[in-house]
Amino acid sequence: MRTGADVAQHAFVKPLLVRFKHCDPAGIVFYPRYFEMINDLVEDWCAEGLGLSFGEMHLREGMGVPTANIECRFSAPSFLGDTLVRSLEVTRLGRSSMTLRIRFAGANDETRLQATLVLVWVAKGEGGRPAPIAVPAAQREAIVRFAAPDSDIEGVS
Amino acid sequence: MRTGADVAQHAFVKPLLVRFKHCDPAGIVFYPRYFEMINDLVEDWCAEGLGLSFGEMHLREGMGVPTANIECRFSAPSFLGDTLVRSLEVTRLGRSSMTLRIRFAGANDETRLQATLVLVWVAKGEGGRPAPIAVPAAQREAIVRFAAPDSDIEGVS
Amino acid sequence: MRTGADVAQHAFVKPLLVRFKHCDPAGIVFYPRYFEMINDLVEDWCAEGLGLSFGEMHLREGMGVPTANIECRFSAPSFLGDTLVRSLEVTRLGRSSMTLRIRFAGANDETRLQATLVLVWVAKGEGGRPAPIAVPAAQREAIVRFAAPDSDIEGVS
Amino acid sequence: MRTGADVAQHAFVKPLLVRFKHCDPAGIVFYPRYFEMINDLVEDWCAEGLGLSFGEMHLREGMGVPTANIECRFSAPSFLGDTLVRSLEVTRLGRSSMTLRIRFAGANDETRLQATLVLVWVAKGEGGRPAPIAVPAAQREAIVRFAAPDSDIEGVS
Repeated sequence: MRTGADVAQHAFVKPLLVRFKHCDPAGIVFYPRYFEMINDLVEDWCAEGLGLSFGEMHLREGMGVPTANIECRFSAPSFLGDTLVRSLEVTRLGRSSMTLRIRFAGANDETRLQATLVLVWVAKGEGGRPAPIAVPAAQREAIVRFAAPDSDIEGVS
Repeated sequence: MRTGADVAQHAFVKPLLVRFKHCDPAGIVFYPRYFEMINDLVEDWCAEGLGLSFGEMHLREGMGVPTANIECRFSAPSFLGDTLVRSLEVTRLGRSSMTLRIRFAGANDETRLQATLVLVWVAKGEGGRPAPIAVPAAQREAIVRFAAPDSDIEGVS
Repeated sequence: MRTGADVAQHAFVKPLLVRFKHCDPAGIVFYPRYFEMINDLVEDWCAEGLGLSFGEMHLREGMGVPTANIECRFSAPSFLGDTLVRSLEVTRLGRSSMTLRIRFAGANDETRLQATLVLVWVAKGEGGRPAPIAVPAAQREAIVRFAAPDSDIEGVS
Repeated sequence: MRTGADVAQHAFVKPLLVRFKHCDPAGIVFYPRYFEMINDLVEDWCAEGLGLSFGEMHLREGMGVPTANIECRFSAPSFLGDTLVRSLEVTRLGRSSMTLRIRFAGANDETRLQATLVLVWVAKGEGGRPAPIAVPAAQREAIVRFAAPDSDIEGVS
């Protein structure tokens, strides 16, 4: 099991408060809300980690990074008022797609969820339909800085 | 107080089940979810009552009916599993704007909420910015059929 | 690839309209909204297919069916106004947990998403913490009626 | 029209980034999301301004501050990537209820929305049903510090 300390050196990390709006009648986070939290984290990472905000992406010829696949294990419930430490690292980088590993942890670094997402870089092609594109060079260079130690992503040299 | 029977003759009516996703840690509907239910009702009314779906609206030169003002009184809480009877009637119709009165009632016709919304018909003008337009003729004709008895909207003749 | 016709005989099926609230600035369903749609389907299946609504569950000693794991592949985008045919079938049934396979299809039965969920039956134990329980007998009997043909779930006899 | 400078001295102020999840197919904030942003602001104000978090409230005998009435005027749309400055001030304080005035402003202090909310302090009474209670003394003392200059709330002396 990876600990918070291992993750902290290369991962993109953002805490988040569990709010009233996230919680269900059982008093815990309703799981679709976790995916909003995950998407917010990816959004922040693009803007702060890769230098390309979602706003700029969508203005730049309808670029985007839709999620093609997601796998998520919910290990323990989160309660109203908890602070979740969300971390993101990259485990694979292809021509158009990238795989992200995301972890949410509670106050004692216990895992609340662990997710693996495959995102694809797309842009509006002919006819207006989004089609996969090569990851832009500036972002590719930034992405490798968030590579997980156990990934086989090679840095730029 | 208007009863369900009064409303039924001219109003647009749709029931809705209170679902898990609507409810908060107190086990009742979280109020921002009520506004999603209200928006769904307006969406259904446009499609089924006025013959113009939100999908068609947005394809037709960026038309839309954004909400300019909303006032909502929450009279009693709604619980998981409740069926809410949502009704909509028109209380004012201007050149570009219309005022809707919406009521959600529980199983014994007791009021859960009563809302008044002002919606404005807009379309993308020069420069791409939405600007108010006259309510399209076909929709204007349909809207008056949902006029509240206590409104001063005149029917088409 | 399983077609809609194969699914229809044993699966729990519910259509759903893609609404304005589901869609993002790219005009397609924002993926966390898909998980709300999935949860709504599970909620309807429990109430209509298994005879135990989420409301009753939570009143009965804090029972629930939290999601422990979810895997979802998004094959094609869904647009405002699309009707999605959502189908659910059971692929595994254990003592406390069950695995569901969910598919959303568009108008020509093309797959929009395919998801696999593991749900665990829990109830509040000593100390108020939810703990796994055996699937209640009445629900177990109902669940097997939704078993996928390629599953190894044995019917009651 | 009150300006940001007037508000800053006594109001509770929190900025917020307009995110992808907030925006609709027209690329602007979907109005039910504004009510989530408003509720988040009230939640932060209770925790940071009044010293009583929503988590503590709900643990303390089912206390809460449900919204009884809300009126909101949407003056101008907000776009993905905008930073909204949200401010809250108190305009009325009764035995059990309080009226809040909330304003969201854009980068040049232009008003995006202005809302008036009536909140009621409640606690679970006999039978488990929430009933109005007097605003707790510690919170009453804190609330008056956020009184709008044009309100008739008297400070503690």
